[in-house]
Amino acid sequence: MKVYLEGSDPTIRVPVREIALTDGTAHTVYDTSGPYTDPDVHIDLTVGLPKLRAPWIAARGRGDGNVTQMHYARCGEITKEMEFIALREGVTPEFVRDEVASGRAIIPANVNHPETEPMIIGRNFHVKINANIGNSAVASTIEEEVDKMTWATRWGADTVMDLSTGKNIHETREWIIRNSPVPIGTVPIYQALEKVNGKAEELTWEIYRDTLIEQAEQGVDYFTIHAGVLLRYVPLTANRVTGIVSRGGSILAKWCLAHHQENFLYTHFEDICEIMKAYDISFSLGDGLRPGCTADANDAAQFGELETLGELTKIAWKHDVQVMIEGPGHVPMHLIKENMDKQLEICHEAPFYTLGPLVTDIAPGYDHITSAIGAAMIGWYGTAMLCYVTPKEHLGLPNKKDVKDGVIAYKIAAHAADLAKGHPRARHWDDVLSKARFEFRWEDQFNLALDPDTAREFHDETLPAPGAKIAHFCSMCGPHFCSMKITQEVREYAESGMAEKSKEFMEKGAEVYVAAP
Amino acid sequence: MKVYLEGSDPTIRVPVREIALTDGTAHTVYDTSGPYTDPDVHIDLTVGLPKLRAPWIAARGRGDGNVTQMHYARCGEITKEMEFIALREGVTPEFVRDEVASGRAIIPANVNHPETEPMIIGRNFHVKINANIGNSAVASTIEEEVDKMTWATRWGADTVMDLSTGKNIHETREWIIRNSPVPIGTVPIYQALEKVNGKAEELTWEIYRDTLIEQAEQGVDYFTIHAGVLLRYVPLTANRVTGIVSRGGSILAKWCLAHHQENFLYTHFEDICEIMKAYDISFSLGDGLRPGCTADANDAAQFGELETLGELTKIAWKHDVQVMIEGPGHVPMHLIKENMDKQLEICHEAPFYTLGPLVTDIAPGYDHITSAIGAAMIGWYGTAMLCYVTPKEHLGLPNKKDVKDGVIAYKIAAHAADLAKGHPRARHWDDVLSKARFEFRWEDQFNLALDPDTAREFHDETLPAPGAKIAHFCSMCGPHFCSMKITQEVREYAESGMAEKSKEFMEKGAEVYVAAP
Repeated sequence: MKVYLEGSDPTIRVPVREIALTDGTAHTVYDTSGPYTDPDVHIDLTVGLPKLRAPWIAARGRGDGNVTQMHYARCGEITKEMEFIALREGVTPEFVRDEVASGRAIIPANVNHPETEPMIIGRNFHVKINANIGNSAVASTIEEEVDKMTWATRWGADTVMDLSTGKNIHETREWIIRNSPVPIGTVPIYQALEKVNGKAEELTWEIYRDTLIEQAEQGVDYFTIHAGVLLRYVPLTANRVTGIVSRGGSILAKWCLAHHQENFLYTHFEDICEIMKAYDISFSLGDGLRPGCTADANDAAQFGELETLGELTKIAWKHDVQVMIEGPGHVPMHLIKENMDKQLEICHEAPFYTLGPLVTDIAPGYDHITSAIGAAMIGWYGTAMLCYVTPKEHLGLPNKKDVKDGVIAYKIAAHAADLAKGHPRARHWDDVLSKARFEFRWEDQFNLALDPDTAREFHDETLPAPGAKIAHFCSMCGPHFCSMKITQEVREYAESGMAEKSKEFMEKGAEVYVAAP
Repeated sequence: MKVYLEGSDPTIRVPVREIALTDGTAHTVYDTSGPYTDPDVHIDLTVGLPKLRAPWIAARGRGDGNVTQMHYARCGEITKEMEFIALREGVTPEFVRDEVASGRAIIPANVNHPETEPMIIGRNFHVKINANIGNSAVASTIEEEVDKMTWATRWGADTVMDLSTGKNIHETREWIIRNSPVPIGTVPIYQALEKVNGKAEELTWEIYRDTLIEQAEQGVDYFTIHAGVLLRYVPLTANRVTGIVSRGGSILAKWCLAHHQENFLYTHFEDICEIMKAYDISFSLGDGLRPGCTADANDAAQFGELETLGELTKIAWKHDVQVMIEGPGHVPMHLIKENMDKQLEICHEAPFYTLGPLVTDIAPGYDHITSAIGAAMIGWYGTAMLCYVTPKEHLGLPNKKDVKDGVIAYKIAAHAADLAKGHPRARHWDDVLSKARFEFRWEDQFNLALDPDTAREFHDETLPAPGAKIAHFCSMCGPHFCSMKITQEVREYAESGMAEKSKEFMEKGAEVYVAAP
């Protein structure tokens, strides 16, 4: 059930999902689903979501022209967004402000996207996940993409990237933004490329700038900008097994080579900062040279670009523009930690935002799993947001089921990372579910699961009768072999003095099983 | 296509799966599928598989009554099984012998299961995976279980455990063993418990011993034996969130408490060794006190039992009986490495065989993923065999689809571990697939995948036309945004001198895309 935590004023209402348990208690979890799961909110996709942040933004005005959360934080101001986030994360508003001021965390929050419920990306908060949606030239419609967005946030996506490259890029994005309760990210070079009919060499700073402004006006919260793909790094990819696999990276590489000039995103970086700070759009500095296979991981091209991203981070921060850094990609397990350690050092602790990484290349069709392994590990090591990978990666555009499978795999990775980092809320969720499991509270176990529908369905496949929901076993072991059942008795036994109990136990007939209802 | 590598004599025929590629080369991979995938072998489940090892076993005779591979290894003898394995793993026979002699690796190979294709479990070889099958009192038939066994090995299970606890335990096992090309493991206490109608306190050494002999005669290759569940450890589980979750562990704990005596598997351990060495059955020393939730990981009960398993390992080795050690279970990421390090130290480098571990408890329905994360990590750290977990874990008995999903998730984990450990064959497989991907050899990419059927199906969902199989894009990005396509050009470009190329490139119209066929 959706409930709200209230802040210092009534406009601060932080959504949480409260799971009522059969023992009379309740467990609350972080909720990304937005107004869609609030029965009191009337949803009309043609109108868009309520503009939650509009009064806050209006009250702050335009000030000195810099409206970034980082700017306010550095001026010592705790914004309503920060207060909202503090309640959402269970920390103090001052802690949020300090993390944003230092650059260790970002709050993606374009002033033109007031529909968002504020969230934060930083390694001292819950690990977040991003879901990519968006059409391509050969598949999908606007309706399908809006549907994927609401579906992704229902299952737990903290941000959504619209990577559309097909028809109606502007209109698709408009529908998504107006109806999204989470920050939206884009890769503006995709639309810019469409404007020059797919000819990378015809891209210009002016076309790109106009695209940035067009998207900024719509309300995009963060832009992936591949400003680190420098001309001198491109030849470093020549001997790779899979070269450049970032779409943006390959477009920029092509432009650099065609003109034999430095990447115009790099040369115009301060101009871009001026746009970003006027809307409070965060940089997601793209890793255009990320490895596309495990053989290419951690090579000179990848780490060369990272050095440049570190340099650009400092420039953005000079403008009080928020920054996160994108990371790989395909990386075998033994090379993952090096990525994290270098990123923290080189990029001055700006939040890391990684795609997986996939820990092997041999399982197309299962890359939500190959990448969830790497994502969990790098999340534990310090990555702040994990970009999901769906089962369709490398094979085709994800459909709605793929989006859910990707999101769930990444919720697992993010939660496992929180748990390994010692997050008390993560620990508590595990414990509440395990306690329900041990006590055969099946309904509680299902409801506490990341995906209650699937847990219930799997259980009911073999034991559909209502009585099985209170049975002290499932079909996996059957009644005689349920260790949990036996253990409950062992526990009572051990607790009350073993010697007398041994006698008493035998006298009672040593019977511990109850017949299945 | 199935082919065989030939050893020093014609009875040594090591199966490999050869994947023919469209560039005229071929890639070969380890093959667990047995004669079922050899069109020249006639399969009759009522007769069982050809008895490959029978002449080798007969030629060795009974000797001094100890027929274990460890015994031969320690006597300096390289058996046919070791030679077979050397070819299969790409190492020298002497290396295999030495690893077995030292106890760092085991070859589960009951002389009464001559149908097996020899395989080895040790951390200096490919990481292996086990699939559990077996009915319960409330679900499944013999046919279904035999079908699951052949299905599991088809997808890559290196061993199979028959954990049946329902009807017809003996007969189910007989069908499975006679038709299994991989070693079969069991937990004999399950059948012993059925013999006393499920009353743990009525178990006796004699009933258990007779069960061991019955199963040894049938050809079981390794026994899970919970001899480390000592009376003094049981109270250590009393304050756990989920107590004892091992079925065998809970049965033994109940027995110990009911009698207030030490575990009879511990007190009769040398008697058990005598049986094991007469058939060459390997110990899989069970971790009856493994944690059943992340809260209980690495506690005093778990590590207490591990100390005892280390002590028992030494005793088994005194008899030249092969040993592996079972491990958890549910363990958050930051506690996984401690498990591996302690196991190696305490158990004298005997191979570790872990169930997952699951890195969080909150995703019932997806525990193949929660556990593949932990399995990949612990495999990298040194675990020799990973026991799969299916999506049905905690919810019900797995069906055929669950078995496949579990096996594939674990093939991913095992391969990722091999890759992280620097196994040259693992590296090569990734590279061959990635090269095919980069060169748009879609059919090769599918055929090189762990699961070609799913990869092909996912691709064809959006682009089913035959022409799409040679297209230089897929539906994910469409033709204009395929980074791999752009990169191929960037590469040619970078390689041949950038300045002139820049000019030439522009003169050619800077066109890199070909129309979709």
